[in-house]
Amino acid sequence: VHSLQISWLLFVFFSSDIEISRAQSPKAVDVLAKEIGLLTDEIEIYGQTKAKVRLSLLERLKDQPDGKYVLVAGITPTPLGEGKSTVTIGLVQALTAHLDINSFACLRQPSQGPTFGVKGGAAGGGYAQVIPMEEFNLHLTGDIHAITAANNLLAAAIDARILHENTQSDKALYNRLVPVVNGVRGFSAIQLARLRRLGINKSDPGTLTEEEVSKFARLDIDPSTITWQRVVDTNDRFLRKITVGQANTEKGFIRQAQFDIAVASEIMAILALTTSLQDMKERLGKMVVANDKKGEPVTAEDLGVTGALAVLMKDAIKPTLMQTLEGTPVFVHAGPFANIAHGNSSVLADKIALKLVGETGFVVTEAGFGADIGMEKFFNIKCRASGLVPSVVVLVATVRALKMHGGGPNVTAGAPLKKEYTEENLQLVADGCCNLQKQIQIAQLFGVPVVVALNVFKTDSVAEVDLVCKIAKQSGAFDAVPCNHWSAGGRGAVKLAQAVEKAARQKNSFKYLYSLELPIVEKIRIIAQKVYGAEDIELSLAAQTQIDRYTRQGFGNLPICMAKTHLSLSHQPERKGVPTGFILPISDVRASIGAGFIYPLVGTMSTMPGLPTRPCFYDIDLDPITEQVKGLF
Amino acid sequence: VHSLQISWLLFVFFSSDIEISRAQSPKAVDVLAKEIGLLTDEIEIYGQTKAKVRLSLLERLKDQPDGKYVLVAGITPTPLGEGKSTVTIGLVQALTAHLDINSFACLRQPSQGPTFGVKGGAAGGGYAQVIPMEEFNLHLTGDIHAITAANNLLAAAIDARILHENTQSDKALYNRLVPVVNGVRGFSAIQLARLRRLGINKSDPGTLTEEEVSKFARLDIDPSTITWQRVVDTNDRFLRKITVGQANTEKGFIRQAQFDIAVASEIMAILALTTSLQDMKERLGKMVVANDKKGEPVTAEDLGVTGALAVLMKDAIKPTLMQTLEGTPVFVHAGPFANIAHGNSSVLADKIALKLVGETGFVVTEAGFGADIGMEKFFNIKCRASGLVPSVVVLVATVRALKMHGGGPNVTAGAPLKKEYTEENLQLVADGCCNLQKQIQIAQLFGVPVVVALNVFKTDSVAEVDLVCKIAKQSGAFDAVPCNHWSAGGRGAVKLAQAVEKAARQKNSFKYLYSLELPIVEKIRIIAQKVYGAEDIELSLAAQTQIDRYTRQGFGNLPICMAKTHLSLSHQPERKGVPTGFILPISDVRASIGAGFIYPLVGTMSTMPGLPTRPCFYDIDLDPITEQVKGLF
Repeated sequence: VHSLQISWLLFVFFSSDIEISRAQSPKAVDVLAKEIGLLTDEIEIYGQTKAKVRLSLLERLKDQPDGKYVLVAGITPTPLGEGKSTVTIGLVQALTAHLDINSFACLRQPSQGPTFGVKGGAAGGGYAQVIPMEEFNLHLTGDIHAITAANNLLAAAIDARILHENTQSDKALYNRLVPVVNGVRGFSAIQLARLRRLGINKSDPGTLTEEEVSKFARLDIDPSTITWQRVVDTNDRFLRKITVGQANTEKGFIRQAQFDIAVASEIMAILALTTSLQDMKERLGKMVVANDKKGEPVTAEDLGVTGALAVLMKDAIKPTLMQTLEGTPVFVHAGPFANIAHGNSSVLADKIALKLVGETGFVVTEAGFGADIGMEKFFNIKCRASGLVPSVVVLVATVRALKMHGGGPNVTAGAPLKKEYTEENLQLVADGCCNLQKQIQIAQLFGVPVVVALNVFKTDSVAEVDLVCKIAKQSGAFDAVPCNHWSAGGRGAVKLAQAVEKAARQKNSFKYLYSLELPIVEKIRIIAQKVYGAEDIELSLAAQTQIDRYTRQGFGNLPICMAKTHLSLSHQPERKGVPTGFILPISDVRASIGAGFIYPLVGTMSTMPGLPTRPCFYDIDLDPITEQVKGLF
Repeated sequence: VHSLQISWLLFVFFSSDIEISRAQSPKAVDVLAKEIGLLTDEIEIYGQTKAKVRLSLLERLKDQPDGKYVLVAGITPTPLGEGKSTVTIGLVQALTAHLDINSFACLRQPSQGPTFGVKGGAAGGGYAQVIPMEEFNLHLTGDIHAITAANNLLAAAIDARILHENTQSDKALYNRLVPVVNGVRGFSAIQLARLRRLGINKSDPGTLTEEEVSKFARLDIDPSTITWQRVVDTNDRFLRKITVGQANTEKGFIRQAQFDIAVASEIMAILALTTSLQDMKERLGKMVVANDKKGEPVTAEDLGVTGALAVLMKDAIKPTLMQTLEGTPVFVHAGPFANIAHGNSSVLADKIALKLVGETGFVVTEAGFGADIGMEKFFNIKCRASGLVPSVVVLVATVRALKMHGGGPNVTAGAPLKKEYTEENLQLVADGCCNLQKQIQIAQLFGVPVVVALNVFKTDSVAEVDLVCKIAKQSGAFDAVPCNHWSAGGRGAVKLAQAVEKAARQKNSFKYLYSLELPIVEKIRIIAQKVYGAEDIELSLAAQTQIDRYTRQGFGNLPICMAKTHLSLSHQPERKGVPTGFILPISDVRASIGAGFIYPLVGTMSTMPGLPTRPCFYDIDLDPITEQVKGLF
């Protein structure tokens, strides 16, 4: 085995991810679908290697017991990432292809922006990949495009509505909103619903009083309160702050606005948290986009656009089936931001996968960022939305990140690694394990057993690897195992799979960290203190005002989605290890009412990445003869 | 038959397009693909009712003779449209399902903007539809989304590049563009190509002189000359004129910009005109986005983004197969604007369809707007790009539009029709036939026989219908036939199909209207005089300057794509019938170098529609149980 591993290593060393991806022909997706027990009319095939899975499956399998539910989270990462995606894929490859246990990986769909910007793709890497990786990293089955279309239709509707209200009398507005068509004048279903919400129980447009006409026809949006932004799935820094409405046709109603990257849209968070088409439609309708001039929330439903948004999202709600390099099944579905949103793939994919693997099978999903953020949100937000109970947390660590936490020099994307990271240094490793220990403890707050997966790099020494595993076990991990999935595929994660399988048989005492009934401030404080290790929190005036507003508007009982840096347990990215003695500053508080969470801002969060001087696309090309994509990684 | 037609009429009268669409279950697209002779590995299925067709088919069938090529064009329309799409679909239904002649309809993909804005969908209507119409009108197979992504990546690259050049020295810029990776410094393939274009025959980054470094690293884009705009597929009027770059991170480099609707992107025009993956990549690279400070064109290739654009467009280049209500095959592919672009569906779809129908079969495609615009561009731009020779022009007319040209009152979308249009009025019809006659003559300029298809409405009298057909034949049409496809499907267009089949057997003397070698001004003048009937053209100073610039830059030999109103043969929409004695004013001249045409602006062209007070989406809804879309029409 050892010499085989070396030859693999050599091959991997000289092969790019896309070459490895291409060297393995994926099986036809209809064959894969059949293997995992899907019926012909439960899938919608998109090309040879992707298929959408219909939600009707949940009804058919409703009496099937769920499989085991495994979350892959990480320690506080370096800017290079610690390999959570490759661990997720390596683990399911080990379970299914090597241990013969049904398993499913549920992954986030990556944004196309970073694929062409700085980061490159996100399909895993080496011998733990989703294939074909170019399909995974490009349009996939169009879900992010659907989100962009829905998000921007709503944005256009807001500004157009304000313009039309500003330039027309109540009567003119009403006549246009409720026109005579073929001699008949009637409200549409959407308009009747609005009348009911306004307490006007009439259905004949001719019978409304002047006051009712005005109430019905005017949303009276306060433009300064608009929180709904436009999106593109492109790293376009020049759209971070813009002025819109400067053409003459918009009659001087200019305002400042911004574009976010598409995955920052609340609609993406909804896609990730929804449990059915009906639920998605309700969430879309509840999205608050602004306040009216009286301070009351204005929703997508008020704008009459709920149905259109649901129509645009009707296919996006179906998870996309793909496969790993070893032919095991993967769902790719939703990919919300991990700061202003909750950074987890979809509830629906997990639910369907848990039915498909059966009682003895495993579903492995991944949370963005470190465990202090992604895992905390997985438990408190995602599991609350789904009602699912996780069995095991796999905590991914690297010797590199631990050395950084132990006091090693800065790690920067693009710059060569310092020698501390390429040569053995047991002291740095030992000192840095405090971060690992703290992240284990965070997972234990939720009552779930932790298996540490040490993602081994070729520069790691045996002594370093042994040391990490020893400390991890001393710190309360159920087990700690070195993994070589990147170079060896599922075979390199067999020990991890065995440990996870064993941990999943432990008694489960899963619990949420806080009750929803607590005041918003209390919920924020619990996360700050218990998870981040802050002494306390400090609210800005703006934050306090928003909290009061949301509480008054009836949104006080939502879970909290902290928008904090992932590069430190604290709010200061440069503070590595386990920072103590800090007060967490909450600069502002916002809400995604449709998705169903309040998100406090801990510092400024960029919602639009930029293109660097040398973007990834300099290496990306298409061979017009073979149709092969080059340079995606 | 007659009573059957009446019962159909009654059913149609009480049924919306989407209800008719839904009442007919489409056959599975793989069954359809097999029927028309596609091999299994030549299609990529998207769900049950759509499939992309691989271009490899063209190679397999290269020795197969082409079928007959029919263009559906129209007289100068009312704002309500005269039914070219329904004629196109009715005609192929008649040919294939009723006359047993192989045929294919090739249609444009509609923009989603108008679907949710004013216009509604574009799948045809009544019993001459593409089904499922909601698939046709929504995301389809993602081509417009791919165009949006590619277009906006290029836009982001332009602004980011200007920022990086403005804030870095030559050396810093060069070091970032050509970094040391794993101890090695090298140019990427894209950069080597740029060096060759600059005449620098070096491949070792260390050997460039300071001057060469500067030349390589700086594009020196003049921001005031940027013609590349961002796009969204949403009617978002507030993006017509905006200011970008106002965040601090963009360091004060703000500029005025705009978003166009996605289908106005030059990439859409390229998709419609390209003949292969290689050709598309070359066209994408040639797109001119701005001038540098010396007045030389800056291209997508200069920005290093050609490969990434081709990667984003690699699936969009494959036409999408759907079906009519009567189960006959349809390609839906590309949908460029009909004013600033050429308004015709793709060359590739037509080419593939012509092979598939075989020598005795028919391919029917449609040109946007009236024949003076869509047809002229079809011949002079699209046929030139494809090398295909059209056999017949079907010219669609309605009694309604002819009455308008004969002096009838204004026809406005949304307002009830005046009685002139609902009661018999032979004088108005007779007077209005001048427009029909002129459009027939325009088609004859190209040496192609014309069959007039009178799209009959239920308010048209027999005498009116007979009169139009008589005048049409007197005016040089090969034949003129009333059509009832909307209420009767293919059966209602059998006479049209027979006339078209007969006309296609005529001797063909197809010719272009002008030689590409003529100066730009001459080409514009020929179109203005021979097609529109203008006395002459008048160039603004801006137009003359641009013509001189394009000529100097080597773009003088491209065909001309006039951006003129479609509501009159002249530049003044209110002038109906056959305007004479006018001078056509050319306010500006622009160019789509990748698509391969120069487009003179005759007046202002809006490239971003808006949402009205009561947008279509007020009627659109999704039933969460049945998953059915309501209110699309």
